Amino acid sequence: MARKLRMGMIGGGPGSFIGRIHRIAAELDGEAQLVCGAFSSDAGRSRDAGEAYHVDPSRAYASFTEMLEREKALPSDQRMDFVAIVTPNHLHYEPARRALESGFHVVVDKPMCFSLQEAQALQEIVASTGRILGVTYTYSGYPMVKEARALVAAGRIGIVRKIYVEYPQGWLSTAVEREGQKQAAWRTDPTRSGAGGAIGDIGTHAAHLAEYVSGLRITAINAVLNTFLPGRQLDDDSSMLLRFENGASGTLVATQVAAGEENNLRLRVYGDEGGLDWQQSEPNSLLLRSLDAPTQLLRAGWGYLSEAAAANSRTPPGHPEGYLEAFANIYAGFFKAVRDLASDPNVDMGRYDFPDVDDGARGMAFIDTVIRSAQSDKKWTAFA
Amino acid sequence: MARKLRMGMIGGGPGSFIGRIHRIAAELDGEAQLVCGAFSSDAGRSRDAGEAYHVDPSRAYASFTEMLEREKALPSDQRMDFVAIVTPNHLHYEPARRALESGFHVVVDKPMCFSLQEAQALQEIVASTGRILGVTYTYSGYPMVKEARALVAAGRIGIVRKIYVEYPQGWLSTAVEREGQKQAAWRTDPTRSGAGGAIGDIGTHAAHLAEYVSGLRITAINAVLNTFLPGRQLDDDSSMLLRFENGASGTLVATQVAAGEENNLRLRVYGDEGGLDWQQSEPNSLLLRSLDAPTQLLRAGWGYLSEAAAANSRTPPGHPEGYLEAFANIYAGFFKAVRDLASDPNVDMGRYDFPDVDDGARGMAFIDTVIRSAQSDKKWTAFA
Amino acid sequence: MARKLRMGMIGGGPGSFIGRIHRIAAELDGEAQLVCGAFSSDAGRSRDAGEAYHVDPSRAYASFTEMLEREKALPSDQRMDFVAIVTPNHLHYEPARRALESGFHVVVDKPMCFSLQEAQALQEIVASTGRILGVTYTYSGYPMVKEARALVAAGRIGIVRKIYVEYPQGWLSTAVEREGQKQAAWRTDPTRSGAGGAIGDIGTHAAHLAEYVSGLRITAINAVLNTFLPGRQLDDDSSMLLRFENGASGTLVATQVAAGEENNLRLRVYGDEGGLDWQQSEPNSLLLRSLDAPTQLLRAGWGYLSEAAAANSRTPPGHPEGYLEAFANIYAGFFKAVRDLASDPNVDMGRYDFPDVDDGARGMAFIDTVIRSAQSDKKWTAFA
Amino acid sequence: MARKLRMGMIGGGPGSFIGRIHRIAAELDGEAQLVCGAFSSDAGRSRDAGEAYHVDPSRAYASFTEMLEREKALPSDQRMDFVAIVTPNHLHYEPARRALESGFHVVVDKPMCFSLQEAQALQEIVASTGRILGVTYTYSGYPMVKEARALVAAGRIGIVRKIYVEYPQGWLSTAVEREGQKQAAWRTDPTRSGAGGAIGDIGTHAAHLAEYVSGLRITAINAVLNTFLPGRQLDDDSSMLLRFENGASGTLVATQVAAGEENNLRLRVYGDEGGLDWQQSEPNSLLLRSLDAPTQLLRAGWGYLSEAAAANSRTPPGHPEGYLEAFANIYAGFFKAVRDLASDPNVDMGRYDFPDVDDGARGMAFIDTVIRSAQSDKKWTAFA
Repeated sequence: MARKLRMGMIGGGPGSFIGRIHRIAAELDGEAQLVCGAFSSDAGRSRDAGEAYHVDPSRAYASFTEMLEREKALPSDQRMDFVAIVTPNHLHYEPARRALESGFHVVVDKPMCFSLQEAQALQEIVASTGRILGVTYTYSGYPMVKEARALVAAGRIGIVRKIYVEYPQGWLSTAVEREGQKQAAWRTDPTRSGAGGAIGDIGTHAAHLAEYVSGLRITAINAVLNTFLPGRQLDDDSSMLLRFENGASGTLVATQVAAGEENNLRLRVYGDEGGLDWQQSEPNSLLLRSLDAPTQLLRAGWGYLSEAAAANSRTPPGHPEGYLEAFANIYAGFFKAVRDLASDPNVDMGRYDFPDVDDGARGMAFIDTVIRSAQSDKKWTAFA
Repeated sequence: MARKLRMGMIGGGPGSFIGRIHRIAAELDGEAQLVCGAFSSDAGRSRDAGEAYHVDPSRAYASFTEMLEREKALPSDQRMDFVAIVTPNHLHYEPARRALESGFHVVVDKPMCFSLQEAQALQEIVASTGRILGVTYTYSGYPMVKEARALVAAGRIGIVRKIYVEYPQGWLSTAVEREGQKQAAWRTDPTRSGAGGAIGDIGTHAAHLAEYVSGLRITAINAVLNTFLPGRQLDDDSSMLLRFENGASGTLVATQVAAGEENNLRLRVYGDEGGLDWQQSEPNSLLLRSLDAPTQLLRAGWGYLSEAAAANSRTPPGHPEGYLEAFANIYAGFFKAVRDLASDPNVDMGRYDFPDVDDGARGMAFIDTVIRSAQSDKKWTAFA
Repeated sequence: MARKLRMGMIGGGPGSFIGRIHRIAAELDGEAQLVCGAFSSDAGRSRDAGEAYHVDPSRAYASFTEMLEREKALPSDQRMDFVAIVTPNHLHYEPARRALESGFHVVVDKPMCFSLQEAQALQEIVASTGRILGVTYTYSGYPMVKEARALVAAGRIGIVRKIYVEYPQGWLSTAVEREGQKQAAWRTDPTRSGAGGAIGDIGTHAAHLAEYVSGLRITAINAVLNTFLPGRQLDDDSSMLLRFENGASGTLVATQVAAGEENNLRLRVYGDEGGLDWQQSEPNSLLLRSLDAPTQLLRAGWGYLSEAAAANSRTPPGHPEGYLEAFANIYAGFFKAVRDLASDPNVDMGRYDFPDVDDGARGMAFIDTVIRSAQSDKKWTAFA
Repeated sequence: MARKLRMGMIGGGPGSFIGRIHRIAAELDGEAQLVCGAFSSDAGRSRDAGEAYHVDPSRAYASFTEMLEREKALPSDQRMDFVAIVTPNHLHYEPARRALESGFHVVVDKPMCFSLQEAQALQEIVASTGRILGVTYTYSGYPMVKEARALVAAGRIGIVRKIYVEYPQGWLSTAVEREGQKQAAWRTDPTRSGAGGAIGDIGTHAAHLAEYVSGLRITAINAVLNTFLPGRQLDDDSSMLLRFENGASGTLVATQVAAGEENNLRLRVYGDEGGLDWQQSEPNSLLLRSLDAPTQLLRAGWGYLSEAAAANSRTPPGHPEGYLEAFANIYAGFFKAVRDLASDPNVDMGRYDFPDVDDGARGMAFIDTVIRSAQSDKKWTAFA
């Protein structure tokens, strides 16, 4: 299958931020090309978007159902291979279900869907169709995050005791959802976003990152959710204490009202022999602290890094890679699985390094558990 | 009272870290001089310490009771003016009480004493004797902490919504208390340290800093305490969620098992119009974030700072001051009160900027509340 | 011309670093697609590279001459629009000349060619053919570099007095050119690299950046060149003092033997009212210092930035962009010129923001002047 | 000699910055006490200053000649031991000469004196009187500077090739000397400052630091001096290329018109096996770069540091020390020499780690050489 994979897109029309990001990320390594899309539920807007994307006009569809039917009917050397779903959360499940059932692989933006129920249904559909579903927990795509995971797995910091993950943003500090900010409008609307506000939008990233790097599952949550803006219907702020399966203790803060903050995801993991510190704002660096030796500043691109880190960067040291490249790394993992499956239908899906339907479902369970914890007077709520 | 104040010391003998720090801090601005001490309960060791401090041998006493008596009997132009108590926590109350009752002012290292009961007793003794008691919550002495407090008070970040305070240290990551580390030995011993481990040693600093800068009181605590080292009798790790009086939401983490961390106290406060970020490892900088404007990097020594910040630094911009100078600023506030009281017995003690007996008592109440919260299954415990 | 531009490549075969970078950068915004190449002078290797790039096998040519002829013969709706030349320096001029004369636009990696003479010839060929030639001085593509330029132009730092530009790398600290490192081998070989070593490879970047941001021309150079590795034939280290046209004073250091450094290009410009500080290792930040006000930390993606900065980033604040995106920005400027020229043959080429043949020629003149200065005992050598 | 050393001061009266700094630094470790001074040439101002310093009124002298005579006449158990000279440069030599000849040790602020001739005379007087003269090149007192020196000496970065030292300040960006700024007034006045402006005030610090850490002597200088402010009589800006005795290549920039900069001294030294990077604005950190391993972040106070670094810090890791403590370290070295000499007149003065009269004379020779180089059209001027 030594050809570019053909990508379709659902959503991503005019005004979309994340649609363009998915196109860049998917095409970055020259392994895929956007060939079609149902970019908007408005036929004209979908066509305009298609033109902007330089997609063949005949393949800028007016609806995802039309797209799935028409693409399915194309000869196999033209038909799209996978579809990226970049709509608001309430419009993830149905297109994903239909695409999988039509034989297409799927990439869904996070959180995977609207509810835990939908998530569980998607797990079943993936199992029954044998198709692949990826979820873009972007931050796990950074090479130095993979290095951190490799270092923990190799025992470099010993037994993990403490995990701090924080994700402060400031863009919802004012009621921008009432000033025509589209990104804010759907994210603060429970009919489109689901039950979680900040906790769904960025809390899921933080929880995924903590589990991904530590290799440990969160088993109990003690959460507080706040809504600071009067009239806002979903949480815009969250803080919680965590327990991990091995007894490690954690804190997670995800807020969108930290005025002046950009997108400041940071993870620190401490074991009994050392600690790791990674911050998305300087993603090519990773600090490795030790009990008795100087802190080491590990940097992307160097020969001393793990295979996982090396395989996920494209440039020599000192040529910064960023968010788009991390995003592309998620796609690269997904593509590898898609290509391997094409040549071997029995390939073990567990060996690929990208967030899949189970990670997506875990994110939905996280939202559900946090909300239940926040509503409870009891300190701890189990996270299954 | 245009003369140097005369300082006595209780504790601070050979092997003490904090005794030497108190001497440097108290003498730094040329306003005081160490003239006597009961540096150790061993007469010989006290004498050796006195010699090392270049104190007159006749004033290196074998016990604090002897010191108080003998100093009290000296003519007023020789007698010490105040005493610094730098012993382990269980040896704070009795010397403080006796010193106050003997007419001396007192500086006590934090936490102020062994128990909340002792703290309340000290409040009463201070009230009845009219003497001054200062507590060295050192970090509130930094000029940029004072700037942060001034900016919050001036409304520069609007209404406070979020407060993060974190204090990771790593030095108790292993059982150094069993390897002859004296500082660790008493801090992990409930008969000398009191009921709090990390929470008493550094959690109280963090809580004080959060309240000092925000000008807001913590009203409820949802805490978890951990002891990671087998056999250790006190907490070596804590995390908690906080509620502040105006509804602001907070997190506080104070841990001594963050392997590889030094003494990384950091405070972030976000309001509805901006945010502040201060970190003890780079104490001369303060970040001021805004909703729509570039983040400002405020630096010690510049003309644009508040009076409080300006009054607490000694050098022009770019000549870093640090921990000892912050410590000296606590003493400077204390000295100002002592001098003013000498000339005006009715001076209003509320106008001085140094942590006093009430701050000390609040720290003890904090320890007490955190422990009760940690023992409770209920999410929130009120902090009176 | 609402279609993707078709890109050809000369060089960039197996083992090439910069070829892949050019493809990613050119395709990043969905405005171009690699359709053909003479990736190697070995036909088999060129074919292999073409396959890796997913180029149609019939368009992976065995030589650039074959490519130019065959592409020229294709119908206009298939023919490539421009060619990227990514070979070592001694193989820039001839392909560029032939491509321009065959009617194709050209992008050349820096330095533009082998000698000042070749550079001057290319200026004439560009003028006579009316084709466009871009040179990838990548670092001028960063949004915060464009912001710095805009701030200087707007007078935000007043009259420029001091310019420091430094470019320390460490990768030539040992004789890697003798250990099979291909990148090092040709760069240290005067028959392939030209007269400049470090000064050509990275000094030209530094000089371009200084002039681009300050808007000022260097008028005199006082340079020292060193070769620290025994037997190496070109400079691996350079330092120089600069005079700018308005009397500003500068220093430029470009070295490849700063052991342990990655690719640490940094520019500082000080005027009589403020200063700017930009560092490639944290490219999304720009410091703006002032005489009496707090330093401002300007960050990519914010609404307060200039139009030039805004137009050159793709993501919201806090989603780091890096080297590949800066590279893509150079291509984006080039593409804009190419598209406009297609619709208006008389368009003014001076209005586009990408390094062109004149910038390329200035870089070659810089190398020439530095070498003459280094060979002279006189302090200053004029830079015309 | 187990007593505090008695300190006198010449200069340091009202309005002085550096006088107060010297007092703090000298007294910081409890090893000395200010007992007398000729703080001003105005008797009343000297008395006022003495009162502010809490010095016995009878020992606040009206002139340094009076002070030297009167102190000399005191019994040896009262008489001052050394004098700190903190006047403008033109008032260093005569008091230093007289103090030495009166049997007192001397500390002089840098640069040591007004001219190279005076410096050479002081060398002779020190030799003939057998007294000790220290010069406060403060920055060499920082523990991480001492660590850097120790690492170079231990061969940790191999053979030194490149030395960059830079010292940008911004405080003379405008003509503050005409607005009553006393520090600026004398520093820009050749009758009080000597022949060097920025080069004398801060360039000497930079040159001393480079030689101190590298252990290498500068042998040739290629300098440019600028005066950016119209009417200013001395240089306010300098840049130069350097040659070191082993063939290493260097750059030194010392400027006081880098608008917005504080006091940003930075030293980088690269050898063939690694590099060191120290910056005064974060003085407790030192970066150690290596060819193939992660950069190490060395921090003050850790057990892995050299003896020299350990001996020059007072606090555990993470308790920042700064400028005053570095200054105190210079005094500590001086005191050690003074005490040892008191007990052993034949002690080898070469074994002490503080800048002495030879370092001071070298600084004066540096100023002289830079000025000669700046006036020359020849590239290089030898530095003997």
